[in-house]
Amino acid sequence: MNETFKALSDPTRRKILDLLKESDLTAGEISGHFNMSKPSISQHLKILKNAGLVQDVKKGQFVVYSLNTTIFQDIISWAFNFTDDQKENKRG
Amino acid sequence: MNETFKALSDPTRRKILDLLKESDLTAGEISGHFNMSKPSISQHLKILKNAGLVQDVKKGQFVVYSLNTTIFQDIISWAFNFTDDQKENKRG
Repeated sequence: MNETFKALSDPTRRKILDLLKESDLTAGEISGHFNMSKPSISQHLKILKNAGLVQDVKKGQFVVYSLNTTIFQDIISWAFNFTDDQKENKRG
Repeated sequence: MNETFKALSDPTRRKILDLLKESDLTAGEISGHFNMSKPSISQHLKILKNAGLVQDVKKGQFVVYSLNTTIFQDIISWAFNFTDDQKENKRG
């Protein structure tokens, strides 16, 4: 979870995730949405990939990035334990 | 969200949240669960508080820490947008 939350603590990386929510994208397409050098975006993508938040698949000469939705389910399950709903369950 | 996720990226801080899930605790009680100096624990508590993950209430001569459960609901709502369930909703 350390790496996951560290990856999520950066607004550029969260914006990349927002873009990937709409559709799978190449690194070039992602870069087009930012005023930032391609190597910077590549570095952010690498951190997101290492944290398991995105995956990349080679399609011909391109690498296409997509969300790894299961990790978001893991975050939901983790956070749910800290909500009042969970407390109610325990009492009931 | 930056501060929230940064606060969550540390295992000691997540363990403090786990303890507070069970019951509200003073800083001293929390320190008792760790092999760490009290100032270090205080620093972690400060970060959790600044991130809105915990709140502290003065009770007599003690400061009692408790979870701020609403922020965990916010995390769930945020993460839900990245799950397949959400994608299904959009398609439907």
